[in-house]
Amino acid sequence: MNFKLVFKLTGKVLLVEGFCMLLPLLVSLAYREDPRPFLYTIPLLLIAGGLLSLLKPKDHFYAREGFFSVGLIWMLISLFGGLPFFFCGYFPTFADCFFESASGFTTTGASILPAVEGLPYGILFWRSFTHWLGGMGVLVLTIALLPSLGNRTLHLMKAESPGPIVSKLVPKTSQSSKILYGIYCALTLIQILCLKLAGMPLFDSVVHAFGAAGTGGFSIKNASIGAYGNPAIEIIITVFMLLFSINFAMYFLLLCGKWKQVLKSDELRFFLGVVAVSILLISVNLSTSQGGMSLGDTVRHAAFQVASIISTTGYSSVDFDLWPEFSRFLLVILMFIGACAGSTGGGLKCSRVLLMFKGLKREIHQVIHPRSVNVVKLDGRVVEESALRSVLLFLAAYLLILFTAGLVVALDDFSFGTTFTSVVSCLSNVGPGLETVGPMGNYSAFSILSKVALSLCMIIGRLEIVPIMVLFSKNAWKRS
Amino acid sequence: MNFKLVFKLTGKVLLVEGFCMLLPLLVSLAYREDPRPFLYTIPLLLIAGGLLSLLKPKDHFYAREGFFSVGLIWMLISLFGGLPFFFCGYFPTFADCFFESASGFTTTGASILPAVEGLPYGILFWRSFTHWLGGMGVLVLTIALLPSLGNRTLHLMKAESPGPIVSKLVPKTSQSSKILYGIYCALTLIQILCLKLAGMPLFDSVVHAFGAAGTGGFSIKNASIGAYGNPAIEIIITVFMLLFSINFAMYFLLLCGKWKQVLKSDELRFFLGVVAVSILLISVNLSTSQGGMSLGDTVRHAAFQVASIISTTGYSSVDFDLWPEFSRFLLVILMFIGACAGSTGGGLKCSRVLLMFKGLKREIHQVIHPRSVNVVKLDGRVVEESALRSVLLFLAAYLLILFTAGLVVALDDFSFGTTFTSVVSCLSNVGPGLETVGPMGNYSAFSILSKVALSLCMIIGRLEIVPIMVLFSKNAWKRS
Repeated sequence: MNFKLVFKLTGKVLLVEGFCMLLPLLVSLAYREDPRPFLYTIPLLLIAGGLLSLLKPKDHFYAREGFFSVGLIWMLISLFGGLPFFFCGYFPTFADCFFESASGFTTTGASILPAVEGLPYGILFWRSFTHWLGGMGVLVLTIALLPSLGNRTLHLMKAESPGPIVSKLVPKTSQSSKILYGIYCALTLIQILCLKLAGMPLFDSVVHAFGAAGTGGFSIKNASIGAYGNPAIEIIITVFMLLFSINFAMYFLLLCGKWKQVLKSDELRFFLGVVAVSILLISVNLSTSQGGMSLGDTVRHAAFQVASIISTTGYSSVDFDLWPEFSRFLLVILMFIGACAGSTGGGLKCSRVLLMFKGLKREIHQVIHPRSVNVVKLDGRVVEESALRSVLLFLAAYLLILFTAGLVVALDDFSFGTTFTSVVSCLSNVGPGLETVGPMGNYSAFSILSKVALSLCMIIGRLEIVPIMVLFSKNAWKRS
Repeated sequence: MNFKLVFKLTGKVLLVEGFCMLLPLLVSLAYREDPRPFLYTIPLLLIAGGLLSLLKPKDHFYAREGFFSVGLIWMLISLFGGLPFFFCGYFPTFADCFFESASGFTTTGASILPAVEGLPYGILFWRSFTHWLGGMGVLVLTIALLPSLGNRTLHLMKAESPGPIVSKLVPKTSQSSKILYGIYCALTLIQILCLKLAGMPLFDSVVHAFGAAGTGGFSIKNASIGAYGNPAIEIIITVFMLLFSINFAMYFLLLCGKWKQVLKSDELRFFLGVVAVSILLISVNLSTSQGGMSLGDTVRHAAFQVASIISTTGYSSVDFDLWPEFSRFLLVILMFIGACAGSTGGGLKCSRVLLMFKGLKREIHQVIHPRSVNVVKLDGRVVEESALRSVLLFLAAYLLILFTAGLVVALDDFSFGTTFTSVVSCLSNVGPGLETVGPMGNYSAFSILSKVALSLCMIIGRLEIVPIMVLFSKNAWKRS
């Protein structure tokens, strides 16, 4: 392992985090709040980042260095990102600050705060801004800002970008990351504008757009988006949550005029199919079991919650924990599935789920026709057997972590529903689960041990397991 | 598909089922009960079986015919096996009878009866006898009884025997199945003797030995084994549940004096390790959270429940649904893991879980050392990549069915814990779950739709998915 280079990279990302924190500092000053949470943290980041950046490493950089760096960097940005929360005095312990910060960067949106209204604007802004930074990836941002990183950037992109198969938009990674951030900024700005036009105050529009763009879910209202009681706002956020769940390569293809290729995307079709069927099923379930709501309202709330959960955002327009079990169970399934690869959303990812289906279909076909040779295809291209195996191993690893973390959280003696869905929700970067951690609940009642375990789950889920496994692997710590 | 041969085989199995039903008929007569439930069913089985056996098919018989036959046969024996329940009048609908019969043959042990005490002895005997028949497999029994089936038997053994890799004990399948049934009978008889000596009445000893041998779990007491309040009985049943969770090939190796090979079995060591760690963890959890029980009692109850759940039997010595969430959650994990391949137990099987771990370890190693070539080994032998892929696809299929069936069961609007664990429990052939379907609960409150879905889950779980998928595949129904 080339530790010097790993640390140097880490330093650069910490510098970027320090500069990003200037924005909440400005917000803090603009609202005449106590700026010390940021005034204390920013110098720490700049000094630590600056010192590490001075290292003079050798140049070799392979996949393991990529995964290792990404794992280490995400642990550190979450720790440093929690410092403003720690200094502001609204959070009981540093474990809570780490939880909230990890939840922000990983775009989970799970909170240990029983109530958010009344918090300083600077702190609320930083909470939501971490969603925006973490959604597209802090390393992708660093690559976009510092193109000097050279040939090692592909390994970093691979390790940080979600999905089974990484496709570059253009040959140069730094160029790719600039395009991605360009699309990301443009969509976020359009959303802010739409929300403002629908009647949301500017500050609220900005932070909620950050939350939807990163598919995070932190709100500045205790009742989340439902607090506004404004159907137009709900519809706008529904649409944008879905837009941010789609592979950003699709937008690049659209910009290049290749809309036929977009329409043919297997993953996109699968994603839209799951969304449509889920909205339909939940609407029918709600209409038949709960009276007193118009069809329009029913469909709107069904669509909002489906978009919120499958995009792994976690906003809510109603308390879906009060819905009948069929709708609740379906939402838990959507937590597992998650968004498209290459989006800002979490979960197993639609392409992985689709590949599992295709693999299963092939296996049954092979039993019936043993002599036929079948390959699994995605978007018309043959998927390598090793890629299929990785997808399936990802599922196994996901379950392994789910059960291990579940055992830790179970020590707090909540119900099975709370225990299970809190871990699924954190691992898939959703935010809310069922029962105690439902959309109107929060994670404040968990022990420090559970909060740390759930924070790790969020980071493991956001980085899709491998980087953290490499980080904690004995083998990786050997000097090369 | 060679339908004639499939139907002829089906006929032979129905004949065997008809003859097996003479035993409960005798019990019924011995206790001077109404024998009509069996007097009506036996002729039906013999006529249907006899007519199908008359078919004169062509001889070609491949893997697909094997899977198809096994799927069809298990559906039919469950339907016919439910007839005595239907005729006895203690069951509300035929869906309940099918549920109970499928639960018996698949060795699940889930019951729709709120209370079993007071049922006729003949019916109780048949309920438990289905466990014993289904445990080792009705087709294995047919092969042992009718060696004339010839070269097609390997495909049948493969399709009915649990586990990722089927190993024959001796070159001839009919010989293998005789040895398996020999070991099975011997262990069952020893258990009956032990239970009798520990003070259990003879009838109770026989039915409970059937339940433990098949890892089924139907009891003739409402409070299951806890009703006897006899530590010796609990210890005996704990030991036998574990013995029946071990690959029967191990006993054959022991009989051949190859104990060194037994000690080296990766799966056996993994299984015993999981059992030991689980007993330890639950004992500590119970001691620290619940007072008033001696250490001996705590360990005994922990061991009983761990053995009962990992073997997928489902007996209980206490109401573990009242245990702290950590212990309950650990038991749910054990439901997923299940017993060893080649045993009478269900679940994913230890060898599959072990292969997943090994596959994951290799994947991480490959990231750190990309140029190294690694193979996955089990018992010192290289596991083929296609076998590893099948194991992982099995996991994917298991989850797919779990979520689909969960959605159906969720329509009954029970809690998430009840919905989720009832499906896991049925799919892994355990029996009890948590909350409403806890060890002191039952499945009577579910709708007919849920009962049918759960019955199918039990059969799918017992046959390890593929046979039922082939049976319901459009492709398989084409004439060859």
